[in-house]
Amino acid sequence: MKLLEFLNTHFKTNFTDPSAFFVKLTEQRFKKGEIITDYGKTEKKLYFINEGFVQITMLHESEERIFDFFFPDSFVCSFTSFLKQEPSDARVSALVECCMEVIQYNDLQQAYKTSLVANQLGRVLTEQIYMVKARREKDFLTKSAVERYRELIAMRPDIAKLIPVNKIAKYLGVHPESLSRIRRSAFPNLG
Amino acid sequence: MKLLEFLNTHFKTNFTDPSAFFVKLTEQRFKKGEIITDYGKTEKKLYFINEGFVQITMLHESEERIFDFFFPDSFVCSFTSFLKQEPSDARVSALVECCMEVIQYNDLQQAYKTSLVANQLGRVLTEQIYMVKARREKDFLTKSAVERYRELIAMRPDIAKLIPVNKIAKYLGVHPESLSRIRRSAFPNLG
Repeated sequence: MKLLEFLNTHFKTNFTDPSAFFVKLTEQRFKKGEIITDYGKTEKKLYFINEGFVQITMLHESEERIFDFFFPDSFVCSFTSFLKQEPSDARVSALVECCMEVIQYNDLQQAYKTSLVANQLGRVLTEQIYMVKARREKDFLTKSAVERYRELIAMRPDIAKLIPVNKIAKYLGVHPESLSRIRRSAFPNLG
Repeated sequence: MKLLEFLNTHFKTNFTDPSAFFVKLTEQRFKKGEIITDYGKTEKKLYFINEGFVQITMLHESEERIFDFFFPDSFVCSFTSFLKQEPSDARVSALVECCMEVIQYNDLQQAYKTSLVANQLGRVLTEQIYMVKARREKDFLTKSAVERYRELIAMRPDIAKLIPVNKIAKYLGVHPESLSRIRRSAFPNLG
Protein backbone atom coordinates (compact mmCIF):
# COMPACT_ATOMS: atom_id res chain seq x y z
CA MET A 1 0.00 0.00 0.00
CA LYS A 2 2.96 2.35 -0.45
CA LEU A 3 1.37 3.69 -3.62
CA LEU A 4 -1.76 4.73 -1.70
CA GLU A 5 0.42 6.68 0.75
CA PHE A 6 2.32 8.23 -2.17
CA LEU A 7 -0.94 9.34 -3.82
CA ASN A 8 -2.41 10.66 -0.58
CA THR A 9 0.74 12.70 0.01
CA HIS A 10 0.76 13.93 -3.55
CA PHE A 11 -2.90 14.91 -3.68
CA LYS A 12 -3.12 16.02 -0.03
CA THR A 13 -5.90 13.47 0.60
CA ASN A 14 -6.47 10.86 3.26
CA PHE A 15 -8.06 7.89 1.47
CA THR A 16 -7.79 4.38 2.88
CA ASP A 17 -8.75 2.53 -0.30
CA PRO A 18 -6.86 2.85 -3.61
CA SER A 19 -10.14 2.68 -5.53
CA ALA A 20 -10.67 6.31 -4.47
CA PHE A 21 -7.93 7.00 -7.00
CA PHE A 22 -9.71 4.79 -9.59
CA VAL A 23 -6.80 2.35 -9.64
CA LYS A 24 -6.92 -1.40 -9.13
CA LEU A 25 -3.65 -2.51 -7.61
CA THR A 26 -2.11 -5.95 -7.49
CA GLU A 27 1.22 -7.00 -6.06
CA GLN A 28 4.02 -8.70 -7.92
CA ARG A 29 7.48 -9.87 -6.83
CA PHE A 30 10.59 -10.28 -9.00
CA LYS A 31 13.80 -12.17 -8.22
CA LYS A 32 17.24 -10.61 -8.52
CA GLY A 33 18.18 -10.50 -12.20
CA GLU A 34 14.65 -11.28 -13.40
CA ILE A 35 13.46 -9.53 -16.55
CA ILE A 36 10.31 -7.50 -15.87
CA THR A 37 9.74 -6.35 -19.47
CA ASP A 38 11.89 -7.60 -22.33
CA TYR A 39 13.00 -6.13 -25.66
CA GLY A 40 10.22 -6.48 -28.22
CA LYS A 41 7.41 -6.97 -25.70
CA THR A 42 4.66 -4.38 -25.44
CA GLU A 43 4.48 -2.90 -21.95
CA LYS A 44 1.11 -3.65 -20.38
CA LYS A 45 1.84 -2.70 -16.78
CA LEU A 46 2.95 0.30 -14.79
CA TYR A 47 4.89 -0.62 -11.65
CA PHE A 48 5.30 1.28 -8.42
CA ILE A 49 8.40 0.08 -6.58
CA ASN A 50 7.78 -0.84 -2.93
CA GLU A 51 11.12 -2.57 -2.40
CA GLY A 52 14.18 -3.18 -4.55
CA PHE A 53 15.66 -1.38 -7.52
CA VAL A 54 15.47 -1.69 -11.23
CA GLN A 55 17.52 -0.87 -14.32
CA ILE A 56 16.40 0.04 -17.84
CA THR A 57 18.71 -0.97 -20.67
CA MET A 58 18.69 -0.59 -24.45
CA LEU A 59 20.68 -2.29 -27.17
CA HIS A 60 22.85 -0.49 -29.68
CA GLU A 61 24.74 -2.65 -32.18
CA SER A 62 24.31 -5.58 -29.78
CA GLU A 63 25.95 -3.60 -27.00
CA GLU A 64 23.81 -2.94 -23.96
CA ARG A 65 23.50 0.64 -22.62
CA ILE A 66 21.94 1.47 -19.27
CA PHE A 67 19.38 4.24 -19.43
CA ASP A 68 18.10 4.55 -15.95
CA PHE A 69 17.98 3.21 -12.44
CA PHE A 70 14.73 3.32 -10.47
CA PHE A 71 14.39 3.14 -6.69
CA PRO A 72 11.53 2.61 -4.19
CA ASP A 73 8.60 5.04 -4.23
CA SER A 74 8.85 5.67 -7.94
CA PHE A 75 6.96 4.43 -10.98
CA VAL A 76 8.78 2.35 -13.54
CA CYS A 77 8.03 0.53 -16.78
CA SER A 78 9.13 0.77 -20.41
CA PHE A 79 7.36 4.13 -20.60
CA THR A 80 7.37 4.82 -24.35
CA SER A 81 6.16 1.27 -25.06
CA PHE A 82 3.47 1.72 -22.39
CA LEU A 83 2.30 5.06 -23.81
CA LYS A 84 2.33 3.99 -27.46
CA GLN A 85 1.48 0.29 -26.94
CA GLU A 86 4.29 -0.62 -29.31
CA PRO A 87 7.08 -3.19 -28.84
CA SER A 88 9.61 -2.03 -26.29
CA ASP A 89 13.14 -1.07 -27.34
CA ALA A 90 14.09 -1.24 -23.68
CA ARG A 91 14.47 -4.03 -21.14
CA VAL A 92 13.37 -3.50 -17.54
CA SER A 93 15.08 -5.81 -15.03
CA ALA A 94 15.27 -6.29 -11.29
CA LEU A 95 18.76 -5.60 -9.94
CA VAL A 96 17.81 -7.11 -6.56
CA GLU A 97 14.66 -8.84 -5.32
CA CYS A 98 11.79 -6.42 -5.95
CA CYS A 99 8.27 -6.00 -4.64
CA MET A 100 5.97 -3.92 -6.84
CA GLU A 101 2.42 -2.64 -6.95
CA VAL A 102 0.99 -3.01 -10.44
CA ILE A 103 -1.50 -0.96 -12.49
CA GLN A 104 -2.74 -2.56 -15.74
CA TYR A 105 -2.64 -0.48 -18.94
CA ASN A 106 -6.26 -1.28 -19.85
CA ASP A 107 -7.57 -0.34 -16.41
CA LEU A 108 -5.73 2.97 -16.59
CA GLN A 109 -7.06 3.81 -20.08
CA GLN A 110 -10.56 3.00 -18.91
CA ALA A 111 -10.17 5.37 -15.97
CA TYR A 112 -8.73 8.09 -18.23
CA LYS A 113 -11.96 8.14 -20.22
CA THR A 114 -14.11 9.40 -17.39
CA SER A 115 -12.15 10.13 -14.23
CA LEU A 116 -10.90 13.62 -13.48
CA VAL A 117 -8.59 12.40 -10.72
CA ALA A 118 -7.09 9.67 -12.94
CA ASN A 119 -6.22 12.27 -15.56
CA GLN A 120 -4.85 14.69 -12.97
CA LEU A 121 -2.70 11.88 -11.61
CA GLY A 122 -1.55 10.77 -15.07
CA ARG A 123 -0.78 14.34 -16.09
CA VAL A 124 1.19 15.21 -12.96
CA LEU A 125 3.21 11.98 -13.08
CA THR A 126 3.95 12.43 -16.76
CA GLU A 127 5.10 16.00 -16.06
CA GLN A 128 7.49 14.58 -13.50
CA ILE A 129 9.01 11.93 -15.76
CA TYR A 130 9.26 14.59 -18.48
CA MET A 131 11.28 16.82 -16.16
CA VAL A 132 13.64 13.97 -15.27
CA LYS A 133 14.28 13.35 -18.98
CA ALA A 134 14.69 17.07 -19.74
CA ARG A 135 17.25 17.37 -16.95
CA ARG A 136 19.17 14.36 -18.22
CA GLU A 137 19.20 15.77 -21.76
CA LYS A 138 20.56 19.03 -20.40
CA ASP A 139 23.27 17.12 -18.55
CA PHE A 140 24.32 15.31 -21.72
CA LEU A 141 24.67 18.58 -23.59
CA THR A 142 26.33 20.63 -20.88
CA LYS A 143 28.22 18.36 -18.49
CA SER A 144 31.20 16.05 -18.58
CA ALA A 145 31.01 12.46 -17.34
CA VAL A 146 32.88 13.56 -14.16
CA GLU A 147 30.28 16.21 -13.37
CA ARG A 148 27.40 13.80 -14.09
CA TYR A 149 28.97 11.16 -11.86
CA ARG A 150 29.46 13.62 -8.98
CA GLU A 151 25.82 14.70 -9.24
CA LEU A 152 24.55 11.13 -9.43
CA ILE A 153 26.44 10.28 -6.24
CA ALA A 154 25.24 13.46 -4.52
CA MET A 155 21.61 12.73 -5.45
CA ARG A 156 21.71 8.97 -4.76
CA PRO A 157 24.57 8.29 -2.32
CA ASP A 158 23.48 4.63 -2.17
CA ILE A 159 24.10 4.13 -5.88
CA ALA A 160 27.85 3.69 -5.52
CA LYS A 161 27.27 0.93 -2.97
CA LEU A 162 24.34 -0.78 -4.64
CA ILE A 163 25.29 -0.75 -8.30
CA PRO A 164 28.52 -2.17 -9.76
CA VAL A 165 30.97 0.24 -11.41
CA ASN A 166 30.52 -1.31 -14.85
CA LYS A 167 26.77 -0.60 -14.70
CA ILE A 168 27.27 3.00 -13.56
CA ALA A 169 29.76 3.48 -16.43
CA LYS A 170 27.18 2.19 -18.91
CA TYR A 171 24.65 4.63 -17.48
CA LEU A 172 27.03 7.59 -17.81
CA GLY A 173 28.02 6.55 -21.33
CA VAL A 174 31.73 6.12 -20.50
CA HIS A 175 34.11 3.15 -20.46
CA PRO A 176 34.39 1.37 -17.09
CA GLU A 177 38.15 2.15 -17.07
CA SER A 178 37.43 5.89 -17.43
CA LEU A 179 34.94 5.72 -14.58
CA SER A 180 37.43 3.90 -12.36
CA ARG A 181 39.90 6.72 -13.02
CA ILE A 182 37.22 9.32 -12.25
CA ARG A 183 36.32 7.53 -9.00
CA ARG A 184 39.93 7.23 -7.88
CA SER A 185 40.67 10.90 -8.44
CA ALA A 186 37.36 12.38 -7.28
CA PHE A 187 36.35 9.95 -4.53
CA PRO A 188 39.49 8.20 -3.22
CA ASN A 189 37.53 6.81 -0.27
CA LEU A 190 35.15 4.81 -2.49
CA GLY A 191 38.04 2.41 -3.24
CA MET B 1 -7.33 29.26 -34.79
CA LYS B 2 -4.83 26.60 -35.79
CA LEU B 3 -4.79 25.34 -32.21
CA LEU B 4 -8.54 24.70 -32.32
CA GLU B 5 -8.05 22.60 -35.47
CA PHE B 6 -5.18 20.77 -33.83
CA LEU B 7 -7.30 19.96 -30.77
CA ASN B 8 -10.31 18.91 -32.85
CA THR B 9 -8.09 16.55 -34.84
CA HIS B 10 -6.47 15.21 -31.72
CA PHE B 11 -9.69 14.62 -29.79
CA LYS B 12 -11.79 13.68 -32.83
CA THR B 13 -14.21 16.53 -32.07
CA ASN B 14 -15.72 19.28 -34.16
CA PHE B 15 -15.90 22.34 -31.91
CA THR B 16 -15.95 25.83 -33.35
CA ASP B 17 -15.03 27.69 -30.17
CA PRO B 18 -11.81 27.07 -28.21
CA SER B 19 -13.69 27.54 -24.92
CA ALA B 20 -15.06 24.01 -25.51
CA PHE B 21 -11.52 22.96 -24.60
CA PHE B 22 -11.59 25.27 -21.55
CA VAL B 23 -8.77 27.38 -22.99
CA LYS B 24 -8.69 31.13 -23.46
CA LEU B 25 -6.48 31.94 -26.43
CA THR B 26 -4.82 35.17 -27.38
CA GLU B 27 -2.53 35.90 -30.30
CA GLN B 28 1.00 37.23 -30.10
CA ARG B 29 3.60 38.04 -32.76
CA PHE B 30 7.38 38.04 -32.40
CA LYS B 31 9.99 39.58 -34.70
CA LYS B 32 12.94 37.65 -36.09
CA GLY B 33 15.54 37.29 -33.33
CA GLU B 34 13.16 38.43 -30.58
CA ILE B 35 13.47 36.72 -27.21
CA ILE B 36 10.19 35.07 -26.20
CA THR B 37 11.32 33.87 -22.76
CA ASP B 38 14.72 34.79 -21.36
CA TYR B 39 17.15 33.10 -18.96
CA GLY B 40 16.04 33.66 -15.37
CA LYS B 41 12.43 34.54 -16.20
CA THR B 42 9.61 32.29 -15.01
CA GLU B 43 7.60 30.95 -17.94
CA LYS B 44 3.98 32.11 -17.67
CA LYS B 45 2.77 31.21 -21.14
CA LEU B 46 2.41 28.17 -23.35
CA TYR B 47 2.67 28.97 -27.06
CA PHE B 48 1.22 27.14 -30.03
CA ILE B 49 3.14 28.06 -33.18
CA ASN B 50 0.92 29.16 -36.07
CA GLU B 51 3.75 30.51 -38.22
CA GLY B 52 7.52 30.71 -37.87
CA PHE B 53 10.05 28.68 -35.94
CA VAL B 54 11.74 28.88 -32.62
CA GLN B 55 14.92 27.73 -30.90
CA ILE B 56 15.56 26.85 -27.29
CA THR B 57 19.07 27.48 -25.96
CA MET B 58 20.84 27.00 -22.66
CA LEU B 59 24.09 28.38 -21.31
CA HIS B 60 26.99 26.27 -20.13
CA GLU B 61 30.08 28.12 -18.93
CA SER B 62 28.91 31.16 -20.90
CA GLU B 63 28.73 29.10 -24.09
CA GLU B 64 25.29 28.79 -25.66
CA ARG B 65 23.98 25.32 -26.58
CA ILE B 66 20.89 24.76 -28.72
CA PHE B 67 18.44 22.29 -27.25
CA ASP B 68 15.60 22.22 -29.64
CA PHE B 69 13.93 23.70 -32.69
CA PHE B 70 10.15 24.01 -32.81
CA PHE B 71 8.03 24.35 -35.93
CA PRO B 72 4.39 25.28 -36.73
CA ASP B 73 1.61 23.19 -35.19
CA SER B 74 3.56 22.40 -32.06
CA PHE B 75 3.55 23.74 -28.53
CA VAL B 76 6.61 25.53 -27.23
CA CYS B 77 7.75 27.31 -24.09
CA SER B 78 10.45 26.84 -21.46
CA PHE B 79 8.63 23.68 -20.33
CA THR B 80 10.38 22.88 -17.06
CA SER B 81 10.09 26.51 -15.93
CA PHE B 82 6.41 26.46 -16.94
CA LEU B 83 5.71 23.23 -15.03
CA LYS B 84 7.66 24.16 -11.89
CA GLN B 85 7.08 27.95 -12.03
CA GLU B 86 10.77 28.46 -11.36
CA PRO B 87 13.23 30.73 -13.21
CA SER B 88 14.06 29.37 -16.65
CA ASP B 89 17.51 28.00 -17.44
CA ALA B 90 16.56 28.17 -21.10
CA ARG B 91 15.98 30.99 -23.57
CA VAL B 92 13.20 30.70 -26.15
CA SER B 93 13.72 32.89 -29.23
CA ALA B 94 12.10 33.47 -32.60
CA LEU B 95 14.39 32.45 -35.48
CA VAL B 96 12.09 34.17 -37.98
CA GLU B 97 8.95 36.27 -37.56
CA CYS B 98 6.50 34.17 -35.54
CA CYS B 99 2.77 34.19 -34.95
CA MET B 100 1.62 32.29 -31.87
CA GLU B 101 -1.54 31.41 -29.99
CA VAL B 102 -1.03 31.81 -26.27
CA ILE B 103 -2.42 30.00 -23.20
CA GLN B 104 -1.74 31.61 -19.81
CA TYR B 105 -0.32 29.42 -17.01
CA ASN B 106 -2.91 30.59 -14.46
CA ASP B 107 -5.84 29.91 -16.80
CA LEU B 108 -4.53 26.42 -17.45
CA GLN B 109 -4.07 25.61 -13.74
CA GLN B 110 -7.58 26.85 -13.05
CA ALA B 111 -8.94 24.55 -15.75
CA TYR B 112 -6.90 21.62 -14.42
CA LYS B 113 -8.73 21.86 -11.08
CA THR B 114 -12.13 20.95 -12.47
CA SER B 115 -12.04 20.10 -16.17
CA LEU B 116 -11.74 16.51 -17.35
CA VAL B 117 -10.95 17.55 -20.91
CA ALA B 118 -8.27 20.03 -19.79
CA ASN B 119 -6.53 17.26 -17.85
CA GLN B 120 -6.88 14.79 -20.72
CA LEU B 121 -5.36 17.36 -23.03
CA GLY B 122 -2.55 18.24 -20.60
CA ARG B 123 -1.79 14.58 -19.99
CA VAL B 124 -1.71 13.59 -23.66
CA LEU B 125 0.46 16.56 -24.65
CA THR B 126 2.84 15.93 -21.78
CA GLU B 127 3.09 12.27 -22.85
CA GLN B 128 4.08 13.49 -26.30
CA ILE B 129 6.79 15.89 -25.14
CA TYR B 130 8.03 13.13 -22.82
CA MET B 131 8.41 10.75 -25.76
CA VAL B 132 10.33 13.36 -27.78
CA LYS B 133 12.75 13.79 -24.88
CA ALA B 134 13.07 10.04 -24.31
CA ARG B 135 13.89 9.54 -27.97
CA ARG B 136 16.51 12.28 -27.91
CA GLU B 137 18.10 10.77 -24.80
CA LYS B 138 18.25 7.41 -26.55
CA ASP B 139 19.89 9.07 -29.56
CA PHE B 140 22.57 10.65 -27.37
CA LEU B 141 23.41 7.31 -25.82
CA THR B 142 23.28 5.18 -28.93
CA LYS B 143 23.99 7.30 -32.01
CA SER B 144 26.87 9.25 -33.46
CA ALA B 145 26.52 12.88 -34.55
CA VAL B 146 26.46 11.67 -38.19
CA GLU B 147 23.50 9.37 -37.55
CA ARG B 148 21.66 12.06 -35.57
CA TYR B 149 22.22 14.58 -38.35
CA ARG B 150 20.96 12.17 -41.02
CA GLU B 151 17.80 11.51 -38.99
CA LEU B 152 17.22 15.19 -38.31
CA ILE B 153 17.40 15.92 -42.04
CA ALA B 154 15.14 12.96 -42.85
CA MET B 155 12.55 14.06 -40.28
CA ARG B 156 12.73 17.81 -41.06
CA PRO B 157 14.08 18.23 -44.60
CA ASP B 158 13.50 21.99 -44.29
CA ILE B 159 15.91 22.30 -41.37
CA ALA B 160 19.04 22.33 -43.54
CA LYS B 161 17.61 25.22 -45.54
CA LEU B 162 16.07 27.18 -42.69
CA ILE B 163 18.68 26.94 -39.97
CA PRO B 164 22.35 27.93 -40.32
CA VAL B 165 25.00 25.21 -40.01
CA ASN B 166 26.47 26.69 -36.83
CA LYS B 167 23.06 26.40 -35.12
CA ILE B 168 22.54 22.81 -36.25
CA ALA B 169 26.04 21.97 -34.96
CA LYS B 170 25.16 23.45 -31.55
CA TYR B 171 21.99 21.37 -31.51
CA LEU B 172 23.86 18.16 -32.29
CA GLY B 173 26.57 18.95 -29.74
CA VAL B 174 29.42 18.98 -32.30
CA HIS B 175 31.80 21.66 -33.58
CA PRO B 176 30.61 23.52 -36.69
CA GLU B 177 33.77 22.31 -38.51
CA SER B 178 32.87 18.67 -37.76
CA LEU B 179 29.34 19.21 -39.04
CA SER B 180 30.63 20.81 -42.24
CA ARG B 181 32.78 17.70 -42.79
CA ILE B 182 29.77 15.46 -42.08
CA ARG B 183 27.62 17.45 -44.53
CA ARG B 184 30.23 17.40 -47.28
CA SER B 185 30.73 13.64 -47.05
CA ALA B 186 27.12 12.61 -46.40
CA PHE B 187 25.19 15.24 -48.35
CA PRO B 188 27.47 16.66 -51.08
CA ASN B 189 24.48 18.36 -52.73
CA LEU B 190 23.75 20.53 -49.67
CA GLY B 191 26.87 22.56 -50.47
